[in-house]
Amino acid sequence: MSEQSEKSAQFEKNEKMRHSASHVMAEAVQSLFAEVKFGIGPTIENGFYYDFDLPRPLTPDDLPEIEAKMVQIMAADFPFTCDEVDKEEAKHIFAHQPYKLDLIDEIPDEKVTVYRQGSFTDLCKGPHVNSTGEIKAFKLLTIAGAYWRGDERRPMLQRIYGVAFETEKELERYLERLSEAAKRDHRRLGRELDLFSFHEEAGPGLVHWHPKGATVRRIIEDFWIQEHLKRGYEIVYTPHIAKIDLWKTSGHWEFYREHLYSPMDVEGQEYLIKPMNCNAHILIYKSRLRSYRELPLRWGELGTVYRYERSGVLHGLTRVRGFTQDDAHIFCRPDQLEDEVVGVLEFAIFMMQTFGFEEYEILLSTRPEKYAGTLQMWDEATQTLETALKRLGLPYEVDPGEGVFYGPKIDIGLKDALGRAWQGPTIQVDFNLPQRFEVNYVGMDGAEHPVVMVHRTVLGSMERFLGCLIEHYAGAFPVWLAPVQAVVIPIADRHVDYALKLEAELKAEGLRAQADTRPERMNLKIREAQLQKIPYMLIVGDKETESATVSVRLRSGEDLGRQTIEAFKAMARAAIEHKAC
Amino acid sequence: MSEQSEKSAQFEKNEKMRHSASHVMAEAVQSLFAEVKFGIGPTIENGFYYDFDLPRPLTPDDLPEIEAKMVQIMAADFPFTCDEVDKEEAKHIFAHQPYKLDLIDEIPDEKVTVYRQGSFTDLCKGPHVNSTGEIKAFKLLTIAGAYWRGDERRPMLQRIYGVAFETEKELERYLERLSEAAKRDHRRLGRELDLFSFHEEAGPGLVHWHPKGATVRRIIEDFWIQEHLKRGYEIVYTPHIAKIDLWKTSGHWEFYREHLYSPMDVEGQEYLIKPMNCNAHILIYKSRLRSYRELPLRWGELGTVYRYERSGVLHGLTRVRGFTQDDAHIFCRPDQLEDEVVGVLEFAIFMMQTFGFEEYEILLSTRPEKYAGTLQMWDEATQTLETALKRLGLPYEVDPGEGVFYGPKIDIGLKDALGRAWQGPTIQVDFNLPQRFEVNYVGMDGAEHPVVMVHRTVLGSMERFLGCLIEHYAGAFPVWLAPVQAVVIPIADRHVDYALKLEAELKAEGLRAQADTRPERMNLKIREAQLQKIPYMLIVGDKETESATVSVRLRSGEDLGRQTIEAFKAMARAAIEHKAC
Repeated sequence: MSEQSEKSAQFEKNEKMRHSASHVMAEAVQSLFAEVKFGIGPTIENGFYYDFDLPRPLTPDDLPEIEAKMVQIMAADFPFTCDEVDKEEAKHIFAHQPYKLDLIDEIPDEKVTVYRQGSFTDLCKGPHVNSTGEIKAFKLLTIAGAYWRGDERRPMLQRIYGVAFETEKELERYLERLSEAAKRDHRRLGRELDLFSFHEEAGPGLVHWHPKGATVRRIIEDFWIQEHLKRGYEIVYTPHIAKIDLWKTSGHWEFYREHLYSPMDVEGQEYLIKPMNCNAHILIYKSRLRSYRELPLRWGELGTVYRYERSGVLHGLTRVRGFTQDDAHIFCRPDQLEDEVVGVLEFAIFMMQTFGFEEYEILLSTRPEKYAGTLQMWDEATQTLETALKRLGLPYEVDPGEGVFYGPKIDIGLKDALGRAWQGPTIQVDFNLPQRFEVNYVGMDGAEHPVVMVHRTVLGSMERFLGCLIEHYAGAFPVWLAPVQAVVIPIADRHVDYALKLEAELKAEGLRAQADTRPERMNLKIREAQLQKIPYMLIVGDKETESATVSVRLRSGEDLGRQTIEAFKAMARAAIEHKAC
Repeated sequence: MSEQSEKSAQFEKNEKMRHSASHVMAEAVQSLFAEVKFGIGPTIENGFYYDFDLPRPLTPDDLPEIEAKMVQIMAADFPFTCDEVDKEEAKHIFAHQPYKLDLIDEIPDEKVTVYRQGSFTDLCKGPHVNSTGEIKAFKLLTIAGAYWRGDERRPMLQRIYGVAFETEKELERYLERLSEAAKRDHRRLGRELDLFSFHEEAGPGLVHWHPKGATVRRIIEDFWIQEHLKRGYEIVYTPHIAKIDLWKTSGHWEFYREHLYSPMDVEGQEYLIKPMNCNAHILIYKSRLRSYRELPLRWGELGTVYRYERSGVLHGLTRVRGFTQDDAHIFCRPDQLEDEVVGVLEFAIFMMQTFGFEEYEILLSTRPEKYAGTLQMWDEATQTLETALKRLGLPYEVDPGEGVFYGPKIDIGLKDALGRAWQGPTIQVDFNLPQRFEVNYVGMDGAEHPVVMVHRTVLGSMERFLGCLIEHYAGAFPVWLAPVQAVVIPIADRHVDYALKLEAELKAEGLRAQADTRPERMNLKIREAQLQKIPYMLIVGDKETESATVSVRLRSGEDLGRQTIEAFKAMARAAIEHKAC
């Protein structure tokens, strides 16, 4: 058996087991609530859920009881049996189950299958394990509301989520990762570390960056700009609104309408808040004639764009309504495209490595059914992207037909410290806009030729990238990014002067230092600094005051002992320079 | 006679003379166009205009002819005479002058005055000089269209602008300044130096910053941020849109409506693009309880805001529809206000001096008729502002009743290199928002107290400030701001390699250097670099290549001779460090 088919056999086995666990959970719920009406109970990644219509709302306290019942059912080792029945008979069987009747009505076949185990009967396609004893390690996790068929005009059911694994060990590992992920949840850390907030009064999905979160963002933006300048990019700024006509010319109004905000009226003209920066960069390009000698032009903008997303799908920093793209457009000649793509790939990988992402997945998406440009353009550009990937020896997979209508693209997915995937940089070739806006250059032949336009980000967006970073670092930013790099903690009141002097000295050095001079106990201050994940705690008492030294404690709890102020500054400077933790 | 009343007597004299010149111009026009219908002909700063309804459009070529006629009329030394007549008689006199009839109808008095000189008769309040010979040095400048009574539904008249002075010398000086101002016009330099553009397709008043303009802006923004951090400010970022309710709470919807864009609809909720950043900063403040110990909080944001302005009043970078405020809000206790105001004043003056503005005018605006807050609050805050100004020994004038409804303010006007006034920094105390949003802190007494909120900018806005800076420097930015700091010009093809090597070396040093390797003649490159106002031209030929030196030429044309690369770098570094030209 190949590795691939082994994996897939294991996957099928797990799917059966998890699906069976959902039936066992349904049986357990039925034994506790005779009047339950059943919705559906499919598998999901690592587990399963089932939707119930119950006489009262469930609470987390119900879960252990349901789990206990499930253990009993598993111990009884009831066999799963399957019967094929015609729809009339099925309707009879599920006469008291309105949701099941709904489902039966929608099945086009004459016959349906009914699975049974113990006292529970379900309308189900299967397959299942042989008996309830084959279900191994499981756990019920959460309760959530879910509309029947996802339709908010229909009844709200109660959904119980569970996970199931082959072994207790696997379950344990999974639960640990889950708890680690919960601790790293950027929404939670965003609050705890005072990084950002959302406000119902202003509207959902609109990030308000607090001073500390803004510090991290600003440092990354500064770094981003400097790295762009080094690589021959130039920075531009463009407005957040433009006449709707511009979006009609670009095709966004036609192809992207569901993500556009409604227009504003200005002196009888309709204006849109921008969903992307490209059009404005094109206007700058077209503000004068461009010669082949000027190309490539690489224009970056930290451009904040607004796109409509349903409020239901918004999620912390990773799915928002306003975000700042670390955007750039490259205007080049066709013969320059390969080098440009190589440059962007190297740049993107440099950025990811800087932030400690060592693993990434590269996907090359090719021509979809509907497309702008000619077949030849697509073939050449797609080949150029492949050649660039090969020149750098980067492993990649092809996602056939998944390019955007305007050109092929390369997407890079990041893997964070927990091995979870995040959407990262993207490089997209565009044949559409140069055509629609007549974005040309004057060639050596004196004639006008269309430029090749590349859209790219090397982080994704500031919001999503910072959401990812917070979880990747579990909020413990490396020293160069930490909003507060060092807190000076005086042991007693008589050390406050020295603490303040030290704070001033460190600040003059460019370090983000704070003296914690509150009338609180030292241990409380240390605990709070640790919770705030401040890299260095500098404890100062009599000895330190007398000898102009500091006792350095790391957020890990490690005690580095007493050192001179100079030695500490050198250590901090080195950590910042190497972007180390 | 005091200096003040001498000035005012001189002013009256000039006014009379300029007003008389407008009548003389009208007489001259009448002698050339018998069918002319007259609008109005008032004085303006330094001169006068008159509006005419004429059978054909005027061109600049008409002006010398009109001027020649005026000289004849002045030489004839016609006396100005004045008659008081009743309105019926006036209507008879102006029977063929429909615009004058319009004016007569609007005069509430029984009698009107009619002024005559030579062959010209005007409905006019006067006063005038004794005779046309008393008009001295004058010049007609421009022709423009102007709707009758400024109403676009009425006829468009032709307006001729002129200036007049006591002496030829004064006129000459004025015309020189005018020509200097035209050369410095930031709209013209914006194009010539490739700094920014506006686009009809995107909408008027929306700045697109090109790479070079964006470089200047970015460097100023970086400097701005660093100077804020040094002074204990923190930076935040907030979204560009918010629910309309927020603007209703703040009062902007009620008091500021004519400058607000129309709302956008999002899921049935109305959103506005933000005209100011304050509300969002307040939301961040209110995201948790604040103790008196945390205050003052100083939060800065380079926040881009959008305000509606009629397209007719838009003007380059100085009157736009979208602009980036160098905004900050200070939340403090009443006892902290004085120190905070002193801090802001010192900061604002430091910023102005950095950019070479040595003269400024300070205006303290006090309580208007309609106001928020109590009389006591106003008195205390106004006194605090005065005390702060006095503590710094700053001269200021009081503008009674000109404060905003929400609190007293200090405005600082800049004087540029030509002595022209520009709107600059502002410091405004706000009693309104803390009340409307309940922005409080927990005092030592454990009770909640309203904060004092200060709005302030130390530049004004990036757009207006940069418009001012471009004119102030006549586009020749000091080295630290220059988009390109040095251009390397090879004398012949064989020096191109050395030029490129030099470019790379200077860039590695952090200098914005460019090698001009186009196949053009050296003199053309020097001329272009001078027009681009690039601080340093580094000419490299055989001698320079052999000895690793550069021949340095300044944009002033001054030749600094040959020097080592190290010496040049040291000179450039010193200029950057001292923010020198």
